[in-house]
Amino acid sequence: MRPRLTDIYGTSLSLLTDLYQLTMAYGYWKQGIGEHEAVFHLFFRKTPFKGGYAVAAGLEHAIGYLEQLKLDADDVEYLGTLTGNDGKPLFEQGFLDYLAEMEFACTIDAMPEGTLAFPHEPLLRVRGPLIQAQLIETPLLNMVNFQTLIATKAARICHAARGEAVLEFGLRRAQGVDGGLAASRAAYIGGCAATSNVLAGKVFDIPVKGTHAHSWVMSFPTEREAFEAYAEAMPNNCVFLVDTYDTVQGVKNAVQVGKQLRERGHEMVGIRLDSGDLTQLSIAARKILDEGGFPDASIVASNDLSEQIIDSLKQQGATISVWGVGTKLATAYDQPALGGVYKLAAIRADADSAWVPKVKLSNQPIKVSNPGVLGVRRYFDAEGTFAGDLIHDEGLNPIAGAAATGIDVGDATRPIRFNGTFEELLVPIFDAGKRVYELPDVQTIRARTAQQLSQLSPHSRRHLNPNIYDVGLEESLHALKLDLIAKARA
Amino acid sequence: MRPRLTDIYGTSLSLLTDLYQLTMAYGYWKQGIGEHEAVFHLFFRKTPFKGGYAVAAGLEHAIGYLEQLKLDADDVEYLGTLTGNDGKPLFEQGFLDYLAEMEFACTIDAMPEGTLAFPHEPLLRVRGPLIQAQLIETPLLNMVNFQTLIATKAARICHAARGEAVLEFGLRRAQGVDGGLAASRAAYIGGCAATSNVLAGKVFDIPVKGTHAHSWVMSFPTEREAFEAYAEAMPNNCVFLVDTYDTVQGVKNAVQVGKQLRERGHEMVGIRLDSGDLTQLSIAARKILDEGGFPDASIVASNDLSEQIIDSLKQQGATISVWGVGTKLATAYDQPALGGVYKLAAIRADADSAWVPKVKLSNQPIKVSNPGVLGVRRYFDAEGTFAGDLIHDEGLNPIAGAAATGIDVGDATRPIRFNGTFEELLVPIFDAGKRVYELPDVQTIRARTAQQLSQLSPHSRRHLNPNIYDVGLEESLHALKLDLIAKARA
Repeated sequence: MRPRLTDIYGTSLSLLTDLYQLTMAYGYWKQGIGEHEAVFHLFFRKTPFKGGYAVAAGLEHAIGYLEQLKLDADDVEYLGTLTGNDGKPLFEQGFLDYLAEMEFACTIDAMPEGTLAFPHEPLLRVRGPLIQAQLIETPLLNMVNFQTLIATKAARICHAARGEAVLEFGLRRAQGVDGGLAASRAAYIGGCAATSNVLAGKVFDIPVKGTHAHSWVMSFPTEREAFEAYAEAMPNNCVFLVDTYDTVQGVKNAVQVGKQLRERGHEMVGIRLDSGDLTQLSIAARKILDEGGFPDASIVASNDLSEQIIDSLKQQGATISVWGVGTKLATAYDQPALGGVYKLAAIRADADSAWVPKVKLSNQPIKVSNPGVLGVRRYFDAEGTFAGDLIHDEGLNPIAGAAATGIDVGDATRPIRFNGTFEELLVPIFDAGKRVYELPDVQTIRARTAQQLSQLSPHSRRHLNPNIYDVGLEESLHALKLDLIAKARA
Repeated sequence: MRPRLTDIYGTSLSLLTDLYQLTMAYGYWKQGIGEHEAVFHLFFRKTPFKGGYAVAAGLEHAIGYLEQLKLDADDVEYLGTLTGNDGKPLFEQGFLDYLAEMEFACTIDAMPEGTLAFPHEPLLRVRGPLIQAQLIETPLLNMVNFQTLIATKAARICHAARGEAVLEFGLRRAQGVDGGLAASRAAYIGGCAATSNVLAGKVFDIPVKGTHAHSWVMSFPTEREAFEAYAEAMPNNCVFLVDTYDTVQGVKNAVQVGKQLRERGHEMVGIRLDSGDLTQLSIAARKILDEGGFPDASIVASNDLSEQIIDSLKQQGATISVWGVGTKLATAYDQPALGGVYKLAAIRADADSAWVPKVKLSNQPIKVSNPGVLGVRRYFDAEGTFAGDLIHDEGLNPIAGAAATGIDVGDATRPIRFNGTFEELLVPIFDAGKRVYELPDVQTIRARTAQQLSQLSPHSRRHLNPNIYDVGLEESLHALKLDLIAKARA
C-alpha cells in the first residue's frame, strides 16, 4: 500500500483533537446519547484568495487518520490525568474504558481530491455515533482545510504561469514538518510540476527538482570554477544559479560552461535567477543564451514569487520559462488558513427514527448552517462546462429526476433552475467504519484537478473579481431551513 | 526521555531537505571537498510583525531531527532512482554508499529557546563537514523559522492581553498536523496558558483546556437543558458557550445552571462568547454574572482574535478575562512565515588551516551576509535591562575584555559603544555530532521567555513602531566585511 502523510507518524494521532471534543463526548456518554446517530458536514463559506473556486484536497490524509483511529493505553492513561477546577479527574473510569474499546464506525462520503468545490458545499459528510463524529471534527478540519488551501493556491499560481512549469520550493519556510510535506503534496495536486522536498518526493511519489545554491558558488574561488565543478559532477542536471555576484556575467559563465558540457555530450538544462529585476534580467539572459547557442535552455526564476508577481512579470514580457515558488505557495501567504467548518446538520436516536434536522443560528446569514443529510449535484451544459451546483437533502427529501430549483446560497431572493446532465459529487469513503474507497494515486488526483479546471468557465477561473459560480440550495431544503430558523428564533 | 516533535514520526526524516542540498553534496563529494569544514549561520533579517523582537524557538525539534539523522536503506534506494535530463541516475553508487555510512559530525551552538533574538544574530551556528552542514539547512530553517514565528506571535498576543490568560485554539486551521502540534508548543513557550490540542498536551506536557461547542447545545431541545446536561456530566469544568441562539439569554441560562451547580458543591468556571460584539456582550454578561452571584466567573472570548483586536477590545472596556486565540495565532496569519536564512560564512580545508571568511553579495545591503565564526554578546545596564547586542567573530578576531565598538547592523554610519556586563548567547548544543546540551523542559523555556521579555525595554516591546534595539557588528568584523565586499565586486 502506498504511504500516506499519517503513515509517517510513529505515534497514535487519536488524541489529535480539541479537548472539548472529549469533554462533549463524555457528556454524551453520561447522557446515554453518545451512540445517537449524527450528521456533520465539513464545508467552507468563502472561497480562498477572493477567487472563484477551491480545489478539494486532504481526503487521503483524513482517511489515514481515520484508519488508525484507536486510543491506545497511553492515550487513555493521559486522559485520566486531566483534572477540573476542583483538582479531581475530568473523566470517570467507565468513560475511559469506553474510549479504549471504541471502534471507528462512521459512514463518510466525500468529494474526491481534485474536485472543484464552492461555498457551502459539503466536502465531507460524516454520519455516525455522535461521540465519534464529534471527536474527528478537529483533525478532519486540520487536514482538509490546509491541503485544500494549498491545492487552490497552487492552481492559481499555475494559472498565472499560463501552462509553464511551476516548482514548489517552500519547505524552509513552511509551517512545520508536514506543513512542508502536506504542502508539497497539495501543490502537486493543484498543478505544480515538482517539489524541492526530497521526503515528499519519496513518500508521495512526486517529481523532485534541484541543482545548487549560492553557497555552492561561494565555496569555490570563482563562479566560473563553481559552475565547471558542478557540470563535472552532475552533467545531466545543470541549472546554474547566476546571481551570486553579477547576474549578467553569471549568464555568460553559464553559457561558457554549457558549451564545455555540450562537448562532453550533455545539454545544459538552464539557468536560475533568484534576485534583482526579473523582467530585465530574464530578457538579458534570454538574449545571451540564444546568442550563445542555447535557445532551449530554461530560465528558472525564484525569489518570493506569487501569482500576482508571476502575472505581472508575464505582462511585462519577462522571458522566464520555469517558476520556482516557495513561501507564498507553501504557506498560502496572503491567506494562510481556509475557514472550513464542521457543523451538526441532523440527529436521530437510531436508524429506525426520523432525522431531526438542525441549524446553528447567527446574526450573520452566511453563518447559519444548512440542515439535513446533504448531497451536492453538479450540472453540466452541452459542452461539458460546469453549469451550477445544487445542494440537496438526500435524507429528508430526495430529488426525483434531474430538474430542480435551487435558491442561490449567496442571495435568498434568487432562484436558480437546474436541469440536464449531472453528477453527484460525494462518493462513499467509509461504510460503518470500513473503508470502501480505493485511493487514487497522486497523478490521478492531479489529472482530476486539471480536468475539473478545464470544465470551469474562464470567467469563474480568473483571479480578479471572478464570476461567482452558481450554487443553489434545493428549494424545499431552503424552505425547511427558513422554518427551522424561525422556530429557533421564536 | 521526554518526547520531541520529531519523535512522533515513525519514518526517517533524513530526506526532509531540498534536493539541491543533495546534488551539491554530490558535487562536493566528487570534488573531494565534502569534508572541508564550513560555518553556516541561521538568522533572520527582519523581526516579524513589524515588531521589536523575536522569541527564539524550535531548537529542541532541530535537535531531535539531528539526533535521528542517518539515511536508511530506503532513503538511499530512493535517491538511486532519481534521474537527470538524460534519463540516467543523478547519483553514482559510491556517493550513495557514502551517504549510507555518513554519521552526523557537526558542532552546533545556538541560542536556548525562549531567548529574545534580533536581526542578523545567529540563532544557530553550524560548523562541520561541508556536505552535512549543507544537508541540514532546510530542516533547521523549517523548524526554527516556524516555531520562532509562533512563539513571537504568542508573546505579542499575551502582551495585548496584559497578563490575562491566552488559550491557543488553532489546531483546526493550522497548517498540517505538526503545523498544529508545533504551534501549540511554540505558543506555550511564547506565553500562552494552555492549548485546546490534546495531543500537544500529551506529547509536550502543556496544560489543555476545553469545554463544549455549539453542537453540544444543538444536540438538546433547549440551551438550558444542554447546560444542565453538561453541568451534570462535568461539574468541575463548566464554561458555558452562550451564543448558540441568543447571547444575553444564554448568560442568564448559565447563571441559573451555575446556581444549581453551586448547590451541588461546584463552582461554574465561566462563560464563553464566540460571536457578536464582544465589547457590548462582555459588559452585559459581566453585569448578569455579577448580579447573579458570580463575580469570579470568567468571561472567555474567541472568534478570530488577534493582538490588534484584543488591544482594541481592551481599550473599549470589554470585560473579557480569558482570550481564546486560534487561526491568527497558530498560522501567524498576518505574516505566516519568518524569513530566516542560513548562510555560509567561512570555510577551511581542515582544523589546521586558517578560516577563509565568505560573504554573499546582493544589490540590497541588508541581504549581504556576515562573514566569520560569529557569536552574539548581550550587554546589560545597571538594572539588568538589555542594553544592546554585539555580533563578533570568535574565529578570526576574538574580543579581549568587555569594551567593544560595533557598527549598527541597520546603519553603517553609526558606531555603538558596548561595555559592562554581558552574556554570550550561543551555547554548545552538539560537539562533533554528540549532543552536549541538556534539554530544558517546556516550563523552563516558557519562564525564560517571560524573564527575557521583562528585561527588554518597553519601548522595544510595544507593537506600534517599536524602538529598534541596538545590534552592532564588531568594528573589525565590519571592516573585514567591507573588504570582502570590495574584493568580490572587483
